[in-house]
Amino acid sequence: MTSQKNHKLCMVPGPVEFHEDVLSSMSTLAISHVSPSFIPVFGESIELLRKLFFTNKGQPFVISGSGTLGWDMVSSNLIEPGEDVLVLNSGYFGDSFTVCLETYGAKVTQVKAEIGDSPSLEAIKEALSTKKFKAITITHVDTSTGVLSDVKAISALVKQISPETLVIVDGVCSVGSEEIRVDEWGIDIVLTASQKAIGVPPGLCILIASERAIVIMNAYENRKAMYFATPPVQLIYALHTSLKQITSIPLEKRFQQHKDVSNHIKNSLEELGLKFVPKTREISANGMTAVYYPDGIKATDLLPKVAEHGVVIAGGLHKIIGPKYFRVGHMGISVTEPHRQHIEKTIEALRVNLKELGYKGAN
Amino acid sequence: MTSQKNHKLCMVPGPVEFHEDVLSSMSTLAISHVSPSFIPVFGESIELLRKLFFTNKGQPFVISGSGTLGWDMVSSNLIEPGEDVLVLNSGYFGDSFTVCLETYGAKVTQVKAEIGDSPSLEAIKEALSTKKFKAITITHVDTSTGVLSDVKAISALVKQISPETLVIVDGVCSVGSEEIRVDEWGIDIVLTASQKAIGVPPGLCILIASERAIVIMNAYENRKAMYFATPPVQLIYALHTSLKQITSIPLEKRFQQHKDVSNHIKNSLEELGLKFVPKTREISANGMTAVYYPDGIKATDLLPKVAEHGVVIAGGLHKIIGPKYFRVGHMGISVTEPHRQHIEKTIEALRVNLKELGYKGAN
Repeated sequence: MTSQKNHKLCMVPGPVEFHEDVLSSMSTLAISHVSPSFIPVFGESIELLRKLFFTNKGQPFVISGSGTLGWDMVSSNLIEPGEDVLVLNSGYFGDSFTVCLETYGAKVTQVKAEIGDSPSLEAIKEALSTKKFKAITITHVDTSTGVLSDVKAISALVKQISPETLVIVDGVCSVGSEEIRVDEWGIDIVLTASQKAIGVPPGLCILIASERAIVIMNAYENRKAMYFATPPVQLIYALHTSLKQITSIPLEKRFQQHKDVSNHIKNSLEELGLKFVPKTREISANGMTAVYYPDGIKATDLLPKVAEHGVVIAGGLHKIIGPKYFRVGHMGISVTEPHRQHIEKTIEALRVNLKELGYKGAN
Repeated sequence: MTSQKNHKLCMVPGPVEFHEDVLSSMSTLAISHVSPSFIPVFGESIELLRKLFFTNKGQPFVISGSGTLGWDMVSSNLIEPGEDVLVLNSGYFGDSFTVCLETYGAKVTQVKAEIGDSPSLEAIKEALSTKKFKAITITHVDTSTGVLSDVKAISALVKQISPETLVIVDGVCSVGSEEIRVDEWGIDIVLTASQKAIGVPPGLCILIASERAIVIMNAYENRKAMYFATPPVQLIYALHTSLKQITSIPLEKRFQQHKDVSNHIKNSLEELGLKFVPKTREISANGMTAVYYPDGIKATDLLPKVAEHGVVIAGGLHKIIGPKYFRVGHMGISVTEPHRQHIEKTIEALRVNLKELGYKGAN
């Protein structure tokens, strides 16, 4: 048996036990979210989601948030106030999805199953015949009851009775442990979260949208919504650790450290003859520095060389002057724990590489 | 120098380098989000945020999402369509916050600073005198330019000219490296994110709301919004790792494994004489099992004993039958890697503890 220390097995219906390699990925060392190393990881994850959901046509979304966020995304993006939605209710999550839809103005009709049952195809057929529904929602597995609904059969029924009705599947407690074939079954939305059978700590909302759903989304105002549900446990542990450190010394001292280090960096760069985006030192951030490239040196010259030197800094971001400057962050342990030499290494990387690019400095 | 393997220093203006202890917290072993061990960690984090923001009166929120989510929360919760908002624009994030506010129907007036400058107090004073603004927004540090705005002075000016105007601070690139005194300065909202000077990987939106802002929030419909910005890098690494594993065997096999294990658990519990919430096996989830307590045994009897035995399972969640049943999850590695013995341990913990509670079984 693989042992993860001596902790209690977490056998609730999510969060589940996590693989050592997944947990190890959770502590991936600091990396920019636009790093060339990170982009293929994100990209391949999206490709792999297509495999998991059996979809070529659908578009996966991976979003920072809880599974509940998926409800709000659906409610705010796909349903206009006053439109009719049919909710198949097999427990707690059918109730909650209804509340969410109604908050956004949907007119909800429910097909309620008895406790421990899922709505029958007959009842669904009858409900679908009463009026035109914009969408039908199915809780694939209701985590409150453990009831599994037959998404394939329900979707086939919808195609037969009311083909323009969108088929929306709440797969929070099913994706990864129940079969879901988005393309073949004609599903428009599946929403889920990371912390169940996908086997990743909470914090990710994952949503697959069909071509048809995306066209509708694009047609609407881009409101995407959020609701507080399963919090990202691991991230909050990390937050706790960091806040303990931050508050272990007087905050005034911390701010002064940031000011001192900021001045040190800015003075060093000024000595090299560089100029800053903020017009005066008084209106300059203490946790970062925005610096114009010297004449004749471009982002594509400097940033890759500095990165090869082992230090990643950022290009400009401003709409008008973006290509003309770069940005250095200096916050947190880079500031408060000088023995790490982050600041000196950064200054040195800039100095050496500017020189190698032929920059002569202030003189 | 403390070494974190041989990775490139991430010196962009967020995400920053993370402390080893923070990274280690990111790989906290699986634990339920309602675990008694986790609640004090979350609770103390909120207390520590009060320290960081110098606020007794304000309410911290910690939400799974990106810093950008804070804009949507403000725009959707505090501003009604047609209301006037004054945006102090010192760069990219002033532009973007404006777009977000306008998406939710706000009428935005901007005080734009020259590039590298922050709006002058004179210009702000003049703008505030033209009409009644529901709110004013300040980008404390605009990450695109590194310009720092004087939140204290601006807030004092607002109190003087237009005291009912809400003071909203975008502190994404400032909290933890710049001083912010919420109570003393009279700030209504500060929004920020985890991955900058707070020193935690991306994935958390942190927001402080004053009493005044909360009263307004409560008065409005509870729409909280979301927008895709900095993705939660570490979580996506973990997602990637897990999806690689999941898709390394045919998914059909995976589903079958879940079915087999589910049947094994359900058969074992049935042999003990227990009954399930789903009425038939066909409509039972394969990744979890919802089980009624036998007569005379309550959640408060069984669950703590099973936990002492090293296995955490969940109570009921359904509105009507909640106290009458419990839930066991069986997804992911607990299913696909039987050598871990998760399933057998769980069944055994149930068997032993039901017996100790005097349950005689089916016979």
